[in-house]
Amino acid sequence: MLNPSVGIIMGSDSDLPILQAAAQILEELQVAYELTIVSAHRTPQRLVDYAQQAEAKGLEVIIAGAGGAAHLPGMIAAITPLPVIGVPVKTGHLQGLDSLLSIVQMPSGVPVATVAINNAKNAGILAAQMIGIKQPEVRQRVRQYKAQLATEVSEKANLVETMGYKQYLER
Amino acid sequence: MLNPSVGIIMGSDSDLPILQAAAQILEELQVAYELTIVSAHRTPQRLVDYAQQAEAKGLEVIIAGAGGAAHLPGMIAAITPLPVIGVPVKTGHLQGLDSLLSIVQMPSGVPVATVAINNAKNAGILAAQMIGIKQPEVRQRVRQYKAQLATEVSEKANLVETMGYKQYLER
Amino acid sequence: MLNPSVGIIMGSDSDLPILQAAAQILEELQVAYELTIVSAHRTPQRLVDYAQQAEAKGLEVIIAGAGGAAHLPGMIAAITPLPVIGVPVKTGHLQGLDSLLSIVQMPSGVPVATVAINNAKNAGILAAQMIGIKQPEVRQRVRQYKAQLATEVSEKANLVETMGYKQYLER
Amino acid sequence: MLNPSVGIIMGSDSDLPILQAAAQILEELQVAYELTIVSAHRTPQRLVDYAQQAEAKGLEVIIAGAGGAAHLPGMIAAITPLPVIGVPVKTGHLQGLDSLLSIVQMPSGVPVATVAINNAKNAGILAAQMIGIKQPEVRQRVRQYKAQLATEVSEKANLVETMGYKQYLER
Amino acid sequence: MLNPSVGIIMGSDSDLPILQAAAQILEELQVAYELTIVSAHRTPQRLVDYAQQAEAKGLEVIIAGAGGAAHLPGMIAAITPLPVIGVPVKTGHLQGLDSLLSIVQMPSGVPVATVAINNAKNAGILAAQMIGIKQPEVRQRVRQYKAQLATEVSEKANLVETMGYKQYLER
Amino acid sequence: MLNPSVGIIMGSDSDLPILQAAAQILEELQVAYELTIVSAHRTPQRLVDYAQQAEAKGLEVIIAGAGGAAHLPGMIAAITPLPVIGVPVKTGHLQGLDSLLSIVQMPSGVPVATVAINNAKNAGILAAQMIGIKQPEVRQRVRQYKAQLATEVSEKANLVETMGYKQYLER
Amino acid sequence: MLNPSVGIIMGSDSDLPILQAAAQILEELQVAYELTIVSAHRTPQRLVDYAQQAEAKGLEVIIAGAGGAAHLPGMIAAITPLPVIGVPVKTGHLQGLDSLLSIVQMPSGVPVATVAINNAKNAGILAAQMIGIKQPEVRQRVRQYKAQLATEVSEKANLVETMGYKQYLER
Amino acid sequence: MLNPSVGIIMGSDSDLPILQAAAQILEELQVAYELTIVSAHRTPQRLVDYAQQAEAKGLEVIIAGAGGAAHLPGMIAAITPLPVIGVPVKTGHLQGLDSLLSIVQMPSGVPVATVAINNAKNAGILAAQMIGIKQPEVRQRVRQYKAQLATEVSEKANLVETMGYKQYLER
Repeated sequence: MLNPSVGIIMGSDSDLPILQAAAQILEELQVAYELTIVSAHRTPQRLVDYAQQAEAKGLEVIIAGAGGAAHLPGMIAAITPLPVIGVPVKTGHLQGLDSLLSIVQMPSGVPVATVAINNAKNAGILAAQMIGIKQPEVRQRVRQYKAQLATEVSEKANLVETMGYKQYLER
Repeated sequence: MLNPSVGIIMGSDSDLPILQAAAQILEELQVAYELTIVSAHRTPQRLVDYAQQAEAKGLEVIIAGAGGAAHLPGMIAAITPLPVIGVPVKTGHLQGLDSLLSIVQMPSGVPVATVAINNAKNAGILAAQMIGIKQPEVRQRVRQYKAQLATEVSEKANLVETMGYKQYLER
Repeated sequence: MLNPSVGIIMGSDSDLPILQAAAQILEELQVAYELTIVSAHRTPQRLVDYAQQAEAKGLEVIIAGAGGAAHLPGMIAAITPLPVIGVPVKTGHLQGLDSLLSIVQMPSGVPVATVAINNAKNAGILAAQMIGIKQPEVRQRVRQYKAQLATEVSEKANLVETMGYKQYLER
Repeated sequence: MLNPSVGIIMGSDSDLPILQAAAQILEELQVAYELTIVSAHRTPQRLVDYAQQAEAKGLEVIIAGAGGAAHLPGMIAAITPLPVIGVPVKTGHLQGLDSLLSIVQMPSGVPVATVAINNAKNAGILAAQMIGIKQPEVRQRVRQYKAQLATEVSEKANLVETMGYKQYLER
Repeated sequence: MLNPSVGIIMGSDSDLPILQAAAQILEELQVAYELTIVSAHRTPQRLVDYAQQAEAKGLEVIIAGAGGAAHLPGMIAAITPLPVIGVPVKTGHLQGLDSLLSIVQMPSGVPVATVAINNAKNAGILAAQMIGIKQPEVRQRVRQYKAQLATEVSEKANLVETMGYKQYLER
Repeated sequence: MLNPSVGIIMGSDSDLPILQAAAQILEELQVAYELTIVSAHRTPQRLVDYAQQAEAKGLEVIIAGAGGAAHLPGMIAAITPLPVIGVPVKTGHLQGLDSLLSIVQMPSGVPVATVAINNAKNAGILAAQMIGIKQPEVRQRVRQYKAQLATEVSEKANLVETMGYKQYLER
Repeated sequence: MLNPSVGIIMGSDSDLPILQAAAQILEELQVAYELTIVSAHRTPQRLVDYAQQAEAKGLEVIIAGAGGAAHLPGMIAAITPLPVIGVPVKTGHLQGLDSLLSIVQMPSGVPVATVAINNAKNAGILAAQMIGIKQPEVRQRVRQYKAQLATEVSEKANLVETMGYKQYLER
Repeated sequence: MLNPSVGIIMGSDSDLPILQAAAQILEELQVAYELTIVSAHRTPQRLVDYAQQAEAKGLEVIIAGAGGAAHLPGMIAAITPLPVIGVPVKTGHLQGLDSLLSIVQMPSGVPVATVAINNAKNAGILAAQMIGIKQPEVRQRVRQYKAQLATEVSEKANLVETMGYKQYLER
């Protein structure tokens, strides 16, 4: 297998059902990745190590997902010069607003590229778009993926126009 | 001077006008403290060092203030077994709600004792209450401080009752 | 049994399924506690009595949980010089935001050490950290607890790295 | 002067510029009142005393204003069987949302009649409406007050219709 | 039966499962009431009629519950000089925050005594407290009700203290 | 069938269970409509085409529903001079607040007529009201619809008054 | 002068500095309007009269602006079959969120076409778009207005591209 | 000058005082950029053209800033396969929460890399980090920039430790 260019990390294995979507879309877009668990709060040294070694390992982008007082993406971004994508994971309370604000409201100097709450798929696509700056074949796959999305919508649109909304809903 | 038992840190010197209130009340309650700047995002290694050395230096409590995606208190709490008090500093947007949620919504295992937005004075009092578990004379000073607060309110109450609210407002 | 050093109180027995986590972690950390129900709104005299007697009984820290217009932690803190930890309990509406703001936004002079919504476990850990200022063996247990958290995360991380996320999720 | 039937209290003299509007409208509606400062957090015993003595003193309604973690109205309501009106005072952060939720979200059994943020005038009118249940002449004055409000609006409406909005704004 | 002194109205029969709690507590406190449906938006004329006739019918207080853009309590209050209690009913979205703000944020001159989201029981108690200004026997019943609440809490407190929280939860 | 005067579009077929209510009420009010899927983000060219051709096709009003970062209504409104009605669709997070703000907070020059979260029925009624400016028979049907709503409420009111709320709830 | 086809009303003359923008843009688009003050809470009868007479007077659209617990647009919409546009006016607290939710979250059957907070200009444009359904010359003016907006943006874009952002900001 | 690899666009020239920070930091990091105005709502065709030509022009990343119902970043991202960075610009109301949610909550398939409210500087740094995937010298400059941030903090920390907070604040 290729050397991974995207690192996917999450604060807890309870985030894996959400974060797996990033892995899946990267597989679809043929971007090599690695995936593991790094907890900012329970394994701070592991966080430091991961962030410090990321570049040397050949990673180009890091996707970090976390919930609540979500410090993982920001702390990774504090250490590495690589672009970091943050996925706010919705926890049991406050509808994910806490996760979102903890990730996106970073101070000047240390950005985290934040995507929508629980939207790890978009984190994967965004990572591929970044990789696409260097690898035209990845950008080409993103382009195809977008075209395919358009086709799917158009087909559904044709279907609902043809059969009417009532029949469409009863399929 | 006494060995400091409280460490006051903040993410940026722009937080100092807020955080100085913690220092002032600790002076008033005669609790020795040290104060410096530690940025989670701009000096992550300094954060790790500070947290790792805190206990050995003799600190008993750490007060950490930060704003926006405020990761300093939580990351300090991730590393040290000492109790950590978080002060959400209000930044220019979102009324400090981002700072509050980033600090208070910590995951199981790693608490941050959060006080009100911008209320560094209360962080200082809370630190003194914690120190008071060990040092009865500090608890005694907290008790006196609370008695003094009650007296001040009573005096104002007497004044407004005696002179009426109109005159009171025109003083 | 030891004289309790932590008092755990809650506004209603409906809060007990949340607050029991504070008791459980204190048991694990071998910190003696007492637990009862004190309603700020339905038993105000009981609240005053509890707060006034807490110190004489030998309590060192009070954990108070309440929901909605949650006044219990703040009113206890108004009366006792002991440190008070507040647990915002999520009620049926507003996702616990009302509980959180009612507890954390205390005025100058009377802090409540607020933890995350419904996170009574963290309240217990924070209480132990405070007790650890006086009792080195309690701090040592907190240190061990944190080390154990790190170990658990690392083991899960190894597992997911070894077997891959798909198999991990299917376990 | 008449025995006061409305008690106006506030947590701090800094709330007086807001709460004075309750006194003013009660003067206009000729309802006798008393006004003083009672801090739930800094003078808890004074709070208990005030609430316990209110009924015997002849008060019929209590207006309580407070900001932030605003516990005064709810704690007064916990002790007295009199109706309590709460005025959420806007503090420096969170736009008064904390004050509002701390006052309005009371648990079953202990209501606080909450008015709009900073709207102490409405607290005064509401108190007069309650007194009007017993004293028809007070209800009559409320009726006249409402008629006068309608007249004022109609006059302004006539004016803007007659002179046009541009001239109206330039008056 | 007695002439009703409290009118309970709601915007839709879908609010009845919430509003019935106001009726039930008024029955318990022996305060006569009437209950019906009045929609501000679907039956505006009925709203005007109801508000205009309320006083002549002998009503002393009106309880109005509504959800979403909840205009019923405020519009009733616009027309009648009687005190109006508003119950924000939680609808499917926004957790009842829309209902709360639509009811509580009334402009100067026209207060609505707002209680907690979905807390119609408290609306009933508050109505009884208002009626108690005129009828000492109603205030006496409120006093007894509050004493009973305190007793219930104390009994539960005794139980949990005696049997321990684990057994209490397993009952 | 008549030439459609209302276009109903939505960002995804997952919005159809919500948006169908607009179609149903337009059928009831006998206003011809067309319905299809147009995704602002996945089919941007289709969006441009739809908006550019709307007027020429004879559409008079466009109803557009979308969720999350809901750009469909605003982008349609950017292109066509026709009035555009926006339906904020509640997605899995943030209770639909994101959808609402993304649709309603349009900049000067390009309004979107926003209705309540998930309330596609109201979008249909509003479209009929707009069409009613030109076609008196449509306005007449809106008038009848409103009268019928009033009748339904009155009937329910009679029923609950006659049988009492307990029996009404047990029907 | 032409018979007005748009009625602009507001709850208070303090809303006039905001609502005047609706009048100005209607003048620019040559749509005749009338403007006055109607307070839902202080002049409820005037509200009923205005709404009942609107259609007979020849109005085609009503623009209603109000703040806080903003009931004016919804109550007008309850009575008239004409389309009603609501302008949430920002008041001193809560950033206009209360106004917005009070206006937009209308129940099924009675829509209010809500525009952005304080954006009365957009209310005027939306009214013109509705009138444009009947009067092609008004739609044509809306089309020209939109074209002019595009031109203005393009000119500014050219300027900033030509002179660079630094010089542009120093103009 | 170099061919620009970053396109900076904004919805209005009123956003320029915020967005200029992106240009400044890119200058500092020696990344060539172009800057212009593209309004999603007032110049939708210009938006489509810009997005469609971006890749062919040689752009690698697009930074788009907008406020309120901020559709510019998302619509650009809908059209181009390049990574798009969104800057939520705070407008006069709702503290920028509307801008943030309108930009970050994008649906699956079309991510926008969102930075903090008004933090265009971080958008510039993030763009440079992305470019750094391809150009090691840019990543090296990001690394130096981060080192310099750390140095600045350390110097301030030394200063405040040396002179004490009182003197530091009086400088």
